[in-house]
Amino acid sequence: MTEPNPNVHGLVLAGGSGMRFWPLSREMSPKQLLTIFGSESLIRQAIARLEVRVPPSGIHLVSNERLAEELRNHLLGSEKEYGEIRYVVEPVGRNTLPAIALAAALIARDDPEAVVVVLPSDHVVEQDGRWEETLDAAIDLAADGFLVTIGLKPTRPETGFGYIEAGEAVEGKGERARHIARFVEKPDLARATEFCESGKYLWNSGMFAFRADVILAEVEKHTPEIAAVVNELAAMPMAEWLTEREMKRFGALEALSIDVGVMEKSDKGAVVCAELDWHDVGSLTALAELGVPDCDGNVTRGNTVTVDSHNSIVWGDRRVVAALGMEGTVIIDTHDATLVCPKDRCQDVRKVVEVLKERGSEEAITHRTMRRPWGSWTVIEEGQGFKIKMIEVKQGARLSSQEHQHRSEHWVILSGTARIERGDEEITLHPGESTYIPASTVHRLENTGKIPLRLIEVQNGEYLEEDDIIRLADEYEREKKPWA
Amino acid sequence: MTEPNPNVHGLVLAGGSGMRFWPLSREMSPKQLLTIFGSESLIRQAIARLEVRVPPSGIHLVSNERLAEELRNHLLGSEKEYGEIRYVVEPVGRNTLPAIALAAALIARDDPEAVVVVLPSDHVVEQDGRWEETLDAAIDLAADGFLVTIGLKPTRPETGFGYIEAGEAVEGKGERARHIARFVEKPDLARATEFCESGKYLWNSGMFAFRADVILAEVEKHTPEIAAVVNELAAMPMAEWLTEREMKRFGALEALSIDVGVMEKSDKGAVVCAELDWHDVGSLTALAELGVPDCDGNVTRGNTVTVDSHNSIVWGDRRVVAALGMEGTVIIDTHDATLVCPKDRCQDVRKVVEVLKERGSEEAITHRTMRRPWGSWTVIEEGQGFKIKMIEVKQGARLSSQEHQHRSEHWVILSGTARIERGDEEITLHPGESTYIPASTVHRLENTGKIPLRLIEVQNGEYLEEDDIIRLADEYEREKKPWA
Repeated sequence: MTEPNPNVHGLVLAGGSGMRFWPLSREMSPKQLLTIFGSESLIRQAIARLEVRVPPSGIHLVSNERLAEELRNHLLGSEKEYGEIRYVVEPVGRNTLPAIALAAALIARDDPEAVVVVLPSDHVVEQDGRWEETLDAAIDLAADGFLVTIGLKPTRPETGFGYIEAGEAVEGKGERARHIARFVEKPDLARATEFCESGKYLWNSGMFAFRADVILAEVEKHTPEIAAVVNELAAMPMAEWLTEREMKRFGALEALSIDVGVMEKSDKGAVVCAELDWHDVGSLTALAELGVPDCDGNVTRGNTVTVDSHNSIVWGDRRVVAALGMEGTVIIDTHDATLVCPKDRCQDVRKVVEVLKERGSEEAITHRTMRRPWGSWTVIEEGQGFKIKMIEVKQGARLSSQEHQHRSEHWVILSGTARIERGDEEITLHPGESTYIPASTVHRLENTGKIPLRLIEVQNGEYLEEDDIIRLADEYEREKKPWA
Repeated sequence: MTEPNPNVHGLVLAGGSGMRFWPLSREMSPKQLLTIFGSESLIRQAIARLEVRVPPSGIHLVSNERLAEELRNHLLGSEKEYGEIRYVVEPVGRNTLPAIALAAALIARDDPEAVVVVLPSDHVVEQDGRWEETLDAAIDLAADGFLVTIGLKPTRPETGFGYIEAGEAVEGKGERARHIARFVEKPDLARATEFCESGKYLWNSGMFAFRADVILAEVEKHTPEIAAVVNELAAMPMAEWLTEREMKRFGALEALSIDVGVMEKSDKGAVVCAELDWHDVGSLTALAELGVPDCDGNVTRGNTVTVDSHNSIVWGDRRVVAALGMEGTVIIDTHDATLVCPKDRCQDVRKVVEVLKERGSEEAITHRTMRRPWGSWTVIEEGQGFKIKMIEVKQGARLSSQEHQHRSEHWVILSGTARIERGDEEITLHPGESTYIPASTVHRLENTGKIPLRLIEVQNGEYLEEDDIIRLADEYEREKKPWA
């Protein structure tokens, strides 16, 4: 079955809060937006895994209102643009069942035959042919009315995952398609070891496939109150989901995972047994699992020095990070924040983020580099009355026509070619050249060259926040919400 | 004796390598230049301790050739300028005895009656009246021909210091002036405890006072080969000390400390018993000794978060530094480098610096902020073909008239008032205004205002190193060496 099934839709669960990967992640740059494993971000990797069978226009990202804009910036702001991806905004985060049911209801409205493949956005899967085979098997079973979980053959007695006991083979679907004997919650080490050795147990990967109408019928059967709300919402324009009334109604639903709320209760369950080079990026220790340790057992990145240190993660960027005499320690260094903790405390990183949030620290919320559909900007210095940004505009991109009430801007070109509208003038600048944009002057910046345009912007003024911007025209229609 | 003795000279040992305080210190910014304890750098604190009895023109700093320029930049570059300080350059570092003997010979040449007070540059001493009393007692004894060590009443059984057993009182000099019974090398804890309790032992502080002719006679007596070389050098212009021949001769001298080489052997020794709030800033753990611990025993500075962490030093600057679940750990964060080590490994920090030096890392050598006589500059970003600096010019200061062959410069004023010569033009710029200096254009920058001038400089060009500068005129006569 390599013939694409036009009824297959993709759903990526992309609403994670980004606290457990701090300081690599931030509230507005959760781990799914990070490019730490492989050459693409985790969300782009998840989309790519769906794209082998689903066109981008059939892929839906489920997230929340604030994050949807960041996801769009991220998916437009690199060379490969995902302009057709759909955005589904949970009114309020209520775990996976309400979110998946809502997206399924939305998809079913337009395509009653829809088969939905659900992927988390924090997995790393080696892209060999085994993935496509697994996906095809799951889609095939789902099309026949099963609620399919992708089950992974365990490679270690992991106590952090739930397990599935595989039952009889599903008739006519080969050895790897099995009925589900039972779901098992996270076991202790003894049971996990037993499961591993038995050959009958699989890791519950959190990847699912089912017909939209089948999952909705099962949601109706097991959690009718959730079914009622999502069916009503699916009939409304998405903007209405974010009204106080609907947010309150959705927020009152029980926060249930799809596993607990439906999969474990349904008699339609099936599992596809898969052998994949698969990783769940759960906490910062994943950096060690996915990295290559040196002879002291340290996994390092960037400009690091380790002396008499062992079994540690030393994760730097451009700055020097030195570990002397450290054992089993995680050191994560970013542009504006550094974390040091023992490996076995990584699950508590959110405690640090909570302290920062209480203080109102921007370092809990954003990175200094912000993606935009046209490229990105990075704050490299700021102080009383000034802010300095490095701006990168991708080939052919053009920022909105805009003006600022409170700040003037000096631009010095570092590389590439800039076409600039400034009031009634139009000028072209090359590296080493500069211009000045006084406050209240309409201006527009475009990269007309063949390489990325990079420039330094020095802002002066009494008020230098991002919201001092009046957009007069914008190619990316940013006045429209991503889901509109 | 508060009447100043015009024959008293000061000598500050300022040649430290700066490795043990990395990353706070660098080879070219050793700890004596750091402002980490109190509001002034350690070297300025040492100078201030001498200044209560010695005018700046009578104070000599002993260091090495490269560091002397940095010391001058440091001592000129703040509001209080020390323009009259003398610089003594060791041809080669050979521990304290050759250096002190050389400086004493130089001082004796101009002032045969000279009394020399020697201070290390890494002490912190509470400036109450007790210091002046101690200094006066030491000068008084020294003037009478004694080799005086300032001995400190121990406050704990410290095993890291040498001790002095105080003998009989020196006749006519009061209870605190004692003959020296003996010097004792660093003791074990049992002996240190005994010493502490006995009331007869003092810490050897490394602070000395003696007549120049007396110390030179004792050097002649105990280490005649050192005396021969320093006497010859003292008769030459200092520039000749740095010829290959003299460096080789000096470098062949035995590397002896003044304690071991002379003080312990001489029968002219005396000790002034002092009770001071005194700290030796030996390693990074001094940050804890001198700081105020929170209720978890952590000493923190800057933008730090500690969660479930104890007895640690978390030393940040502007960036966030978070310690989660750490015990007894030192975390030092600077603009361009971070160090993490257990407290009891601080003495091995030089191992990290050695690795960096092998790699040719600039982070071992310099800070991103460089002091100049007129102020300072900081590299805030650099990349292919560009470098961005924040430049700060103190009130009334003027940079050299200069030009660059390979780079153009854009200047954007952030605060203060800049008078700029650019080719034949002369312009005055205010905050938010900018100018452009093309390559090969003579230019000069001056702060004519009443507050510090701060500006952003964006350099463009193929070669952006500091040595692309032709100085045409310079108020600070930087073509002249500090010691010339």
